[in-house]
Amino acid sequence: MNPIRSLFVSGLVSGLFVAGMTGVAFADDNADTAKMLIEKAQTSSLAWDLVESLTTEIGPRLGGSAAEARARDWAVRKLEGLGFANVHVEDFEMDGWRRGDIALHVGDPYPQRLIATALGGSVGTPVGGITASVVRFESIQDLREAPLGSLKGKIAYVADKMTRSQRGSGYGVAVQKRGGGASVASERGALAIVIRSAGTDYERQPHTGGVRYNGEFAAIPAAALSNNDADQLDRLLALNGDIELTLSMSAKRLGKVKSGNVIGDIIGSEYPDEIVLLGAHLDSWDEGTGAIDDGTGVAIVTAAAALVAQHATPKRTIRVVLFGAEEQGLIGARAYVKANAEEMEKIIMVSESDFGSGRIWRMDTGIAKADVPKADAILRVLRPLGVLPGDRTASGGSDVSALSAAGAPAISMGQNGWDYFDLHHTPNDTLDKIDPDDLAQNVAVYAAFALMVANTDGGFHAPEKETEDGN
Amino acid sequence: MNPIRSLFVSGLVSGLFVAGMTGVAFADDNADTAKMLIEKAQTSSLAWDLVESLTTEIGPRLGGSAAEARARDWAVRKLEGLGFANVHVEDFEMDGWRRGDIALHVGDPYPQRLIATALGGSVGTPVGGITASVVRFESIQDLREAPLGSLKGKIAYVADKMTRSQRGSGYGVAVQKRGGGASVASERGALAIVIRSAGTDYERQPHTGGVRYNGEFAAIPAAALSNNDADQLDRLLALNGDIELTLSMSAKRLGKVKSGNVIGDIIGSEYPDEIVLLGAHLDSWDEGTGAIDDGTGVAIVTAAAALVAQHATPKRTIRVVLFGAEEQGLIGARAYVKANAEEMEKIIMVSESDFGSGRIWRMDTGIAKADVPKADAILRVLRPLGVLPGDRTASGGSDVSALSAAGAPAISMGQNGWDYFDLHHTPNDTLDKIDPDDLAQNVAVYAAFALMVANTDGGFHAPEKETEDGN
Repeated sequence: MNPIRSLFVSGLVSGLFVAGMTGVAFADDNADTAKMLIEKAQTSSLAWDLVESLTTEIGPRLGGSAAEARARDWAVRKLEGLGFANVHVEDFEMDGWRRGDIALHVGDPYPQRLIATALGGSVGTPVGGITASVVRFESIQDLREAPLGSLKGKIAYVADKMTRSQRGSGYGVAVQKRGGGASVASERGALAIVIRSAGTDYERQPHTGGVRYNGEFAAIPAAALSNNDADQLDRLLALNGDIELTLSMSAKRLGKVKSGNVIGDIIGSEYPDEIVLLGAHLDSWDEGTGAIDDGTGVAIVTAAAALVAQHATPKRTIRVVLFGAEEQGLIGARAYVKANAEEMEKIIMVSESDFGSGRIWRMDTGIAKADVPKADAILRVLRPLGVLPGDRTASGGSDVSALSAAGAPAISMGQNGWDYFDLHHTPNDTLDKIDPDDLAQNVAVYAAFALMVANTDGGFHAPEKETEDGN
Repeated sequence: MNPIRSLFVSGLVSGLFVAGMTGVAFADDNADTAKMLIEKAQTSSLAWDLVESLTTEIGPRLGGSAAEARARDWAVRKLEGLGFANVHVEDFEMDGWRRGDIALHVGDPYPQRLIATALGGSVGTPVGGITASVVRFESIQDLREAPLGSLKGKIAYVADKMTRSQRGSGYGVAVQKRGGGASVASERGALAIVIRSAGTDYERQPHTGGVRYNGEFAAIPAAALSNNDADQLDRLLALNGDIELTLSMSAKRLGKVKSGNVIGDIIGSEYPDEIVLLGAHLDSWDEGTGAIDDGTGVAIVTAAAALVAQHATPKRTIRVVLFGAEEQGLIGARAYVKANAEEMEKIIMVSESDFGSGRIWRMDTGIAKADVPKADAILRVLRPLGVLPGDRTASGGSDVSALSAAGAPAISMGQNGWDYFDLHHTPNDTLDKIDPDDLAQNVAVYAAFALMVANTDGGFHAPEKETEDGN
């Protein structure tokens, strides 16, 4: 530690927290090392270099595609180059899908093209498309209330706008519409469904994302309009209740294809069998280059673990898992849990970065009550980076929620997602959207967090099961 | 005039300008009437209603297309409904064009799709596309300096970024690249040309716009990359100088097709044969709905003239000309000048609105020196709207520059164009981009301007011809 840094971390900054540091389970040198890592991370370009390389050399990387396979090769090279141990790919099978082309046209008296995109996993239309009248619903709830058979020969349209928020809380209801709307519409007789995108921008970018057929009703074509085009359709329907659309999609579900998770370890010096698992997903949807979803996550957790290895000695193993096929439904995460069932109890912490590149502003926990003081000690180190205490309901994030559901302790680093759903799942998810300083803040948080968890006395434990009366 | 308005225009507002109003050629009641029109315009929704109707009911309206013909029918209905006289269409012929589809792919080792659009009027590629190595040029000037034959079998790529400015001053050099680059590249042997869009956004929207083959060299396919994709190609070329692209375009030049200008008059009460001509263009490129280019212009000049007719008595005729096929090279404007050659001397003023919906902040003149005090009087009325004095080189704007070149006096109302080239010629040129308050400010300026010009004593005259030594 150089003298200037020593002065900084021991004096000015840590002094702010001395009053609250009684009863903490860390040796001071863990906090000091974490603070040193924060400094290192904030001046490192490693994460930027990784996300630039991934989004440029590979670009879009749909789960199960040849591009995703190239991304796995890329990840293996990068992890090995950065000194990770046990670098390997765990393959799994999944249902393949190809987007194909789409055209959506309004019929007379307002003939014009609307901009839409196929939802991921959607079936296509017959050649020549489906031409039918539109029935508009304000929400998925209204669609559910439509009588069975009432949409026979029609195209259902669900029009509600997603709400913008810092935590992305509007996404839950939007996902119900996107994922489940097709089967609800099909049950009522619809030939196809068109939704307003689950997205908050007005840049004429339709947002893709997975549709989930429930298997009970016919799989019907499903597409999303940009917000601009949904407004246009709303205006046309206000002029004339009987609007006909022609939807042509050559989307196709393929047979079984291969995907995989890429795994690499920074081996712990004292407890190599105990694992701090940092996740991100390597796949992306196929229209953008997957910069903020989830190239940044890949870069953040990889760079954080590499910086820990370069500048410190973690006592436990820090494992980076770059999941495949997250977008099609956490397929890689489920495969990981299945393939590594015997290791689940060795995982003392999971956390995933998968919410773009906005600054981390809160830390949520999903840990045993007895471990809360250890989390508080981490938080004190992260406070100068702007990280505030969150709640105790953390699952750790998208893929790793499969691990926390299987019993792993979890901490979620909450990012500012105010703009995230402007870009999420659109062609516009590109490198230029990433702020390098915000990216570095994320790396700093994850590096400090990973080191402190790896070195904490006694580790972390899963939260107590809630009793049936909710306590 | 109601008492409250009378107090406002005679007292509070006009009082600010009394000191400067000596020697003005207007009767005070012209200025007062103009100020009343400003009030009316600022609370009128007419322009918004017009642009909403045009962009919704017609949508994109490429010059020479069936959609542009529907837009002419729409314009005739609207002008007649608003009480314009002599509403009619002047047809003309032009070369038709159809965009078709485009696909642009990078070859190994970085296979991925880039987002591009065909330039307007471009020829297509053979079926299966053109696959060739890329040769990058920093600018159109660098491309011009490439030796003849040096691009044989290659795809030329011109990479320079357009500069953002309030007046759109970066567009001139960008248009040289977009319009002229294909013939320069073809002369040097290139099979196709790809340019970075003439646009300032990073929303992954390629900007179309006309390519102009000079007729001397083979017409080669020409396409524009979004700024994001141009950055991507730049990064790939930095990694590996030998990048191959495959460009497939089904764009097609059609035979002769029909377009037309739509014309309507507010007849002057004293000098009906003297014309104040307000222009805008009815056509748009085919990917957006032509909201800011030039639905707003159509709405602004139509609403301004209609408000004058509703609330005042112009002494001269105010003519609205909604030109066809502006985007393909002022084709409608040239047809208008040709068809109305005998009327040119009756035009005492031309002005066009064709720079989006940003607020007007300056007024430039192209008039005789003797008429400058009359323009100053107009400016004094417009000053409370934020309009500042400009220069004396005005052409009146895009189409009507054909009229000022033919000898008509001109005034240009300069809008804030800071964001204009984010949207210009992209799919993202949609209604939601228009600020209703800014739109109303434009209508207020044009209404006051049109009334004052129509009623000025002695009219306006063309600027004196410059002598050969520049004086």
